[in-house]
Amino acid sequence: MNPAGLMVAEKLDQVPGILREVGVDVWLLFTRESHAVHDPSLDLVVGTGVTWQSAFILTASGDRVAIVGSLEMALMKTHGHYPEVVGYVGGISDDLRRVLARLDPKRIAIDFSESDPMSDGLTHGMYLTLRRILGETPYGDRLESSERVVAALRGRKSVTERARIRKACEITVEIFDRLTSRLRAGLTEKQVAALIMDEVQALGGPELAWTAECCPAVFTGPESAGAHAGPTDRVIEPGHIMNVDFGVKVEGYCSDLQRTWYFLRPGEDRAPEEVARGFDVIVQSIRAAAAAVKPGRPGWEIDRVARSTITERGYAEYPHGTGHQVGRAAHDGAGGFLPLWERYGNTPNLPIEVGQCYTIEPRLTVERHGIATCEEIVAVTRDGCEFLSRPQDTLYLVR
Amino acid sequence: MNPAGLMVAEKLDQVPGILREVGVDVWLLFTRESHAVHDPSLDLVVGTGVTWQSAFILTASGDRVAIVGSLEMALMKTHGHYPEVVGYVGGISDDLRRVLARLDPKRIAIDFSESDPMSDGLTHGMYLTLRRILGETPYGDRLESSERVVAALRGRKSVTERARIRKACEITVEIFDRLTSRLRAGLTEKQVAALIMDEVQALGGPELAWTAECCPAVFTGPESAGAHAGPTDRVIEPGHIMNVDFGVKVEGYCSDLQRTWYFLRPGEDRAPEEVARGFDVIVQSIRAAAAAVKPGRPGWEIDRVARSTITERGYAEYPHGTGHQVGRAAHDGAGGFLPLWERYGNTPNLPIEVGQCYTIEPRLTVERHGIATCEEIVAVTRDGCEFLSRPQDTLYLVR
Repeated sequence: MNPAGLMVAEKLDQVPGILREVGVDVWLLFTRESHAVHDPSLDLVVGTGVTWQSAFILTASGDRVAIVGSLEMALMKTHGHYPEVVGYVGGISDDLRRVLARLDPKRIAIDFSESDPMSDGLTHGMYLTLRRILGETPYGDRLESSERVVAALRGRKSVTERARIRKACEITVEIFDRLTSRLRAGLTEKQVAALIMDEVQALGGPELAWTAECCPAVFTGPESAGAHAGPTDRVIEPGHIMNVDFGVKVEGYCSDLQRTWYFLRPGEDRAPEEVARGFDVIVQSIRAAAAAVKPGRPGWEIDRVARSTITERGYAEYPHGTGHQVGRAAHDGAGGFLPLWERYGNTPNLPIEVGQCYTIEPRLTVERHGIATCEEIVAVTRDGCEFLSRPQDTLYLVR
Repeated sequence: MNPAGLMVAEKLDQVPGILREVGVDVWLLFTRESHAVHDPSLDLVVGTGVTWQSAFILTASGDRVAIVGSLEMALMKTHGHYPEVVGYVGGISDDLRRVLARLDPKRIAIDFSESDPMSDGLTHGMYLTLRRILGETPYGDRLESSERVVAALRGRKSVTERARIRKACEITVEIFDRLTSRLRAGLTEKQVAALIMDEVQALGGPELAWTAECCPAVFTGPESAGAHAGPTDRVIEPGHIMNVDFGVKVEGYCSDLQRTWYFLRPGEDRAPEEVARGFDVIVQSIRAAAAAVKPGRPGWEIDRVARSTITERGYAEYPHGTGHQVGRAAHDGAGGFLPLWERYGNTPNLPIEVGQCYTIEPRLTVERHGIATCEEIVAVTRDGCEFLSRPQDTLYLVR
């Protein structure tokens, strides 16, 4: 079995226990044309894509049934994760109703969620189709959100999963280290991005953790694009703070790290006081947040610790959450270290759990210089957390 | 503007006319974390991804408004497709209600569809959120499926789009031609796939049109996996029919072609009668289907022409549709040359339109030898269709 297949097998082993824990009898993935609209849960418990309407049925007692278009039966059998594979030609309805009637679940979790994008892979059209197929059965009214199932399954990283994220972090930090020696004022943001991509190639060309348009993202100086934008032709000047947001994907698992550099002006041999202080406040904020991480605490408490470290020292509040989970995706969904803002829904209230991996990424503006920010990744342990990334504790200076 | 940006601009120009044609006032894309669950319409009218809840509002009079998380305003402005970009920090609700109230649409199309996966990019969770946000406004009850909008916009390929599909077809046929001279009995399906990937690299390494697991797909001999499966260690033997399903993506547009080879047995200098006949019936079926294509006809009529050519000559019916649209995705959604089976919903009834590009891919089994199939691509013209792929008209023989 390849590494992806092994990881699917490992996640499938977790499923029955999680279903029993949340009191769900059946978890049903219902999807089609996954190349076009992809339910993220497919990566966890199926390990391949589908074309025609397909149902993956997982029960609290460990049964697994796949119902797929007949031409995809061979593919499912090759992967071997579903002991029972049903193939259909005309339509899926009869087989789906028959399998559900046999299992007769009282509670059926399906992939929709207002709060968690990773639990929201069922499209509205497919939801309507499912309701129609189940119309005259008792099962249509037994559907509920799978968000607790998915949050637990994605969130609780196995030892193998954490090792892969750590490896992705190590490669990313190595790339940052190599980059530092090649930086100089006069380069543009795009040229810095190209240097990073050189180092990516030099290290064997790992996949990027998110879309190449913004990976790496490079921001230099005051009034840069700020975040979530691609590198521009803006030129790095002496006196600029530059930050980079970058991650790679190793064996299906992502890093997502940010680092900060200062470009010395003629005559300077260290950063000006306000730049040094800004960077130190970021480091303090990250340390305080990491020290506050404990299983059982809601994520918003960690956000408040990091955020107040910034605001109490007189800086403006950053317009985003402090940290998100990371895993197969750079933004791995469910709970985060997030403020209680509308756009985050209920996710800031979710409790921290052992095995989850979170970023910590506060940010502040140093007037006339740029934006100071670091992003680190921690894994939650029984009594706190450990860093999976080697944290940046001193500002990188470029002469 | 880069080629992707140009294509978005071209598609955006089509939108107001299509909205007026179907009587819709506003087309609303409502999405988030598009790296995780991706509304395919983003590729047509946005051209980049988003992180936080985002709304893209397009009107029949040509207005375009983007409402995005504040940190993604710069990205949207860089792309330049939305003259009005609104950024929010806390939540999207107020801005979304305000913009809709100003435009006051009577009919609002959103991306859900039971029939068409490409029009079904709105998740059920995001649908619930949208209904909640619009709860006390008149707009919640004015929502309808965008399937007619998306089908027209994706389906009606511009001259540029058709040229890109043709180019992808040319590269694919070139790869097939180069492959033929390297084939011999004794190779495994996986080795044939590796030869194809060699040729892909030799031609500059274009992106694959679908997941590498099944692209190329290689099937040799009787009782092969059939379709939609990856290559295996099965060895090609003299007397086998082998077929390959493969496509590349060029400047964002796909090919999706199949070809058939016969491996001569010792003493043979042509294929046995039953193999030659099977292949000829495939060619006849494709020609008959192409000759039947006319704007205005429903797709199922073309399916019937291709299918009956096969069954009337005594072969079993193939368990899939005759053809799908191709474009940015290998399976580009909406109408197809499809039978009136449950799993295809209403899509076989949709009328053929000028500019659409369809595959034609009948299949039949030659007992004891394997599966004969070709897949070609045609573009619909004013009075018929033209081939974008150079059709295979003779069986490839391998000595």
